[in-house]
Amino acid sequence: MLKGIIIDNIVSTRKQESLLGSKFMEVEILENGQRTGKYLVAIDSVGAGIGETVLITTGSSARLALRNTATPTDAVIVGIVD
Amino acid sequence: MLKGIIIDNIVSTRKQESLLGSKFMEVEILENGQRTGKYLVAIDSVGAGIGETVLITTGSSARLALRNTATPTDAVIVGIVD
Amino acid sequence: MLKGIIIDNIVSTRKQESLLGSKFMEVEILENGQRTGKYLVAIDSVGAGIGETVLITTGSSARLALRNTATPTDAVIVGIVD
Amino acid sequence: MLKGIIIDNIVSTRKQESLLGSKFMEVEILENGQRTGKYLVAIDSVGAGIGETVLITTGSSARLALRNTATPTDAVIVGIVD
Amino acid sequence: MLKGIIIDNIVSTRKQESLLGSKFMEVEILENGQRTGKYLVAIDSVGAGIGETVLITTGSSARLALRNTATPTDAVIVGIVD
Repeated sequence: MLKGIIIDNIVSTRKQESLLGSKFMEVEILENGQRTGKYLVAIDSVGAGIGETVLITTGSSARLALRNTATPTDAVIVGIVD
Repeated sequence: MLKGIIIDNIVSTRKQESLLGSKFMEVEILENGQRTGKYLVAIDSVGAGIGETVLITTGSSARLALRNTATPTDAVIVGIVD
Repeated sequence: MLKGIIIDNIVSTRKQESLLGSKFMEVEILENGQRTGKYLVAIDSVGAGIGETVLITTGSSARLALRNTATPTDAVIVGIVD
Repeated sequence: MLKGIIIDNIVSTRKQESLLGSKFMEVEILENGQRTGKYLVAIDSVGAGIGETVLITTGSSARLALRNTATPTDAVIVGIVD
Repeated sequence: MLKGIIIDNIVSTRKQESLLGSKFMEVEILENGQRTGKYLVAIDSVGAGIGETVLITTGSSARLALRNTATPTDAVIVGIVD
């Protein structure tokens, strides 16, 4: 899993039907508390907002955090770091 | 998921039968709005064209965005960023 | 699999229900006995603590090391290196 | 998926039984038409040869391109670029 | 798949029960015949030893090379390069 800080929302009107209602966030990866300059896009599953530090699960396991486990995503925000 | 900009079509006449009809696009990855000089090839599922900024799902989850979920691909364009 | 050294606990109160009770650890990757400056977050499954050198399984295989194999994680500590 | 150029065959006499008959190729990754100095080994499924530019599918999806989808591989050549 | 050279055994007494009997090897990745300074840990399935050049399958496909396909690993040595 990765730790990261949410830096932006991403809006996509034309997308896969199965992604309707998904909230896409751009996240900068944190390693050892430092920003890394590496980014990915994840779907939020815990009500996280811009500026919050979060945990992200990647790969096929990410889908297990969503109500629809057939959602075509490879990254989901699964927790907010205290 | 990754954000990227489509830079080219890739044409492959000799390919796996299950890939017939797939539209292959070369995409440059964007991070934090910047081009990264990193590229991958993805199958389009949303009618995206060269120059458009898109969302890409990678890994086995990518196949869930295609009509034939047994397509041997690891990257699919699943949305166009507004 | 990766070899790493546990450097910290990560606390997340607001998280996916299926992650309740999971112990998150930040791990620095070791290669050839050297610290690499690369980090990831893994769930512990063997009672490992800070400062211990461990083996980490990543990807969907990681879940096979947990009691609940539907846990949405992509990295699990599966052994402690002697 | 990745675009690459086949640079060599790899011969392995002692291997997993399920890999008997597999043709292993070392491939240099191409990005934006340029060689990258990054390499991987893939099983050929389309009759590609040294010097040809190919498309490679990685991860568990790669196996869907093979007759035996239980082949323990994570990279398969699925097309030849025109 | 990756080509690599086995550089060491890794001993882990306290580990997941499902990993009992697994032989862990640290492998340096080779690209185009050159050492890369990148390393991973893989389970041996073909009787390989230190100093041998091997093929490694990563990800969930790796498990298909083992007798117990539920082994929580993401990297298995599947062949010895001639």
